[in-house]
Amino acid sequence: MLSHIMENHELLGVAPAAADDVLEHFERATYGNRTYLHLTDTRHGIERGTVLFGETVVRGFPKISRTLVLDPGISQFFDGPFVVEEKLNGYNVRIARLDGEVLAFTRSGYVCPFTTHTVSERLDLDPFFDDHPESMLCGEMIGPESPYTDHDYPAVDSLDVSIFDVRHRRTGNPLLVDRRRRLCDAYGFPQATSFGVFDPETAVPELRRIVEELGNEDREGVVMKSLDGRRQLKYTTSAANQGSLAYAFAVPFDYGPDFLFPRIMREAFQSVEFGESDAAARERARSLGEAILLPAIGAVREVREEGSTGEEHTVRGSPEAIDALFAHLDRMKLRTTIRRDETVDGERVVTFLKHSAATTDSVKSYLAGQTFDA
Amino acid sequence: MLSHIMENHELLGVAPAAADDVLEHFERATYGNRTYLHLTDTRHGIERGTVLFGETVVRGFPKISRTLVLDPGISQFFDGPFVVEEKLNGYNVRIARLDGEVLAFTRSGYVCPFTTHTVSERLDLDPFFDDHPESMLCGEMIGPESPYTDHDYPAVDSLDVSIFDVRHRRTGNPLLVDRRRRLCDAYGFPQATSFGVFDPETAVPELRRIVEELGNEDREGVVMKSLDGRRQLKYTTSAANQGSLAYAFAVPFDYGPDFLFPRIMREAFQSVEFGESDAAARERARSLGEAILLPAIGAVREVREEGSTGEEHTVRGSPEAIDALFAHLDRMKLRTTIRRDETVDGERVVTFLKHSAATTDSVKSYLAGQTFDA
Repeated sequence: MLSHIMENHELLGVAPAAADDVLEHFERATYGNRTYLHLTDTRHGIERGTVLFGETVVRGFPKISRTLVLDPGISQFFDGPFVVEEKLNGYNVRIARLDGEVLAFTRSGYVCPFTTHTVSERLDLDPFFDDHPESMLCGEMIGPESPYTDHDYPAVDSLDVSIFDVRHRRTGNPLLVDRRRRLCDAYGFPQATSFGVFDPETAVPELRRIVEELGNEDREGVVMKSLDGRRQLKYTTSAANQGSLAYAFAVPFDYGPDFLFPRIMREAFQSVEFGESDAAARERARSLGEAILLPAIGAVREVREEGSTGEEHTVRGSPEAIDALFAHLDRMKLRTTIRRDETVDGERVVTFLKHSAATTDSVKSYLAGQTFDA
Repeated sequence: MLSHIMENHELLGVAPAAADDVLEHFERATYGNRTYLHLTDTRHGIERGTVLFGETVVRGFPKISRTLVLDPGISQFFDGPFVVEEKLNGYNVRIARLDGEVLAFTRSGYVCPFTTHTVSERLDLDPFFDDHPESMLCGEMIGPESPYTDHDYPAVDSLDVSIFDVRHRRTGNPLLVDRRRRLCDAYGFPQATSFGVFDPETAVPELRRIVEELGNEDREGVVMKSLDGRRQLKYTTSAANQGSLAYAFAVPFDYGPDFLFPRIMREAFQSVEFGESDAAARERARSLGEAILLPAIGAVREVREEGSTGEEHTVRGSPEAIDALFAHLDRMKLRTTIRRDETVDGERVVTFLKHSAATTDSVKSYLAGQTFDA
């Protein structure tokens, strides 16, 4: 066992002194009949979601810093030209081929069998991994038919993958942005839109225009990246800030508190930086209030009238993919209720409620008169 | 020292096993040339704000439970008739006479010299303490000219005290509500309005009417109390929920995060219980959004334009009272800037800014482009 731990720590490239602390934050999970470990918390520079799968490491996707102001956030962060790409609103996925098998990992480092099925249907992955066996593709799963986060995109009917990074799976080192974009083009992988290369000293007016246009189309925002792909900075639209609050407050006791304060402050800084009139600021505030309170009211009503609440999702896929998804959600201890289950062109289309235990239980007991000592 | 500690623990009435834990959470403070201890956190049933002043204990004012729903919150909490009194929006004060000197303690257990001056001017306290030397008066300091929380009341020009409890200072035991009201009347002490005695099974419609009326007048809410004064339950108006958010978000990095989530949930439960129409719920949500975001925008703007922000307060009193207040705020490490200082009818009327260090520093650094990794 000790020798195995040493191997893992060498595999991760952490100093011996930090090895125990890192390794004890890995948790065991299973995929089919195989066991793997995933890191539940960022430790000593090893990202949350990092996976130890047999003798292979798949590094987690790094947390991207956010600025509250374009000016001087951008010039403070970048000391040279940077690329701007669209930030998409879906769920993060890493795709790697391990022992000949393509697997899709969620942000927190679980193999998601449904996503694994889906990416293998959408992308022709073997030619890429034949040429680049040690790489991982990092992307966003977007569209309305998603088991996790769903957001509509005009061009996506069901669930698509969009690649925004190619990294070495063991070190996590990214490709140069330009090389990555050409590589993805060469293999026919859809990519996040690039808005081009900018100079930190002159980028702000154009960035502001891009953010406003994305916001008008209810899109999420931008990720700015140094040309070597190593430094990344994000900035989001008001639509995204308020949209994620509405999403969180549909199940307020599950996601509410953590989501709340940072998004309000993003809105406040954006309003000031964009020089909003009092009337526009008031309109933003009113719309923010609706994004927060109306879903919360809906959740309380739903628990009162139906006894429980949760998130509704629709997914589409082969019968095997759908079965694998529900087996996976089961293993994750998520309770689901099927609301519709149809077969369309040989695919199953299933709408289900993912029960929100924290919200259902909290709302129930407060409705029953439990005192609220928060 | 050990014998002294033993005395304190006996004074507090805590079990020997808990004594160390309680005593180590007391902190030293000074008033004039005297030193006293106050408890910074509720421990083993001893309330935060409990004071050890020489050989005397002044128990803290207990935290009052809150219900999110009148029905069945009230019938769950009370098993017999209860009194309803108005909850006032100001700051909590306990008044006791120690070694012949009347002192006013804040919620957290500091002697506030300004409040001490003020209550001694407003109330004729010696006759009461001559007759009830071991009692403390618990009340709310209300009105616009307050160094801490200010809220307008039509009947209060400057800063008044309203008594809502009389307790034994060492045990914290309250008087029967009815006895306390008669006692305060007898000594001429202003009291929180009583709405009378109610039965838990039938109180809800009338309580709802009272809460709605208080809300329409921008007042805070009600405290319901068992007839013996021992069980207390509070419920607040939407005006109070939103008002305190507006207050907190004027200095968002000081008070924002903790204030936020609970008040949003109070609003959600109230909207559902009061059976609001979709239009009324939307109006509540929009007004909530304004209460949160507009003050936050104001704070960001103020830091950008003036370099700092804080809370503005106005106080009025004798020159000695005002000097004592600023000496006290200084000792509390609060930075203040005098904005106006006038003498009116022999009293000083001083408007000052209480600097909010957390908000000023955070907003400054985010405006300077520091990344926001919340």
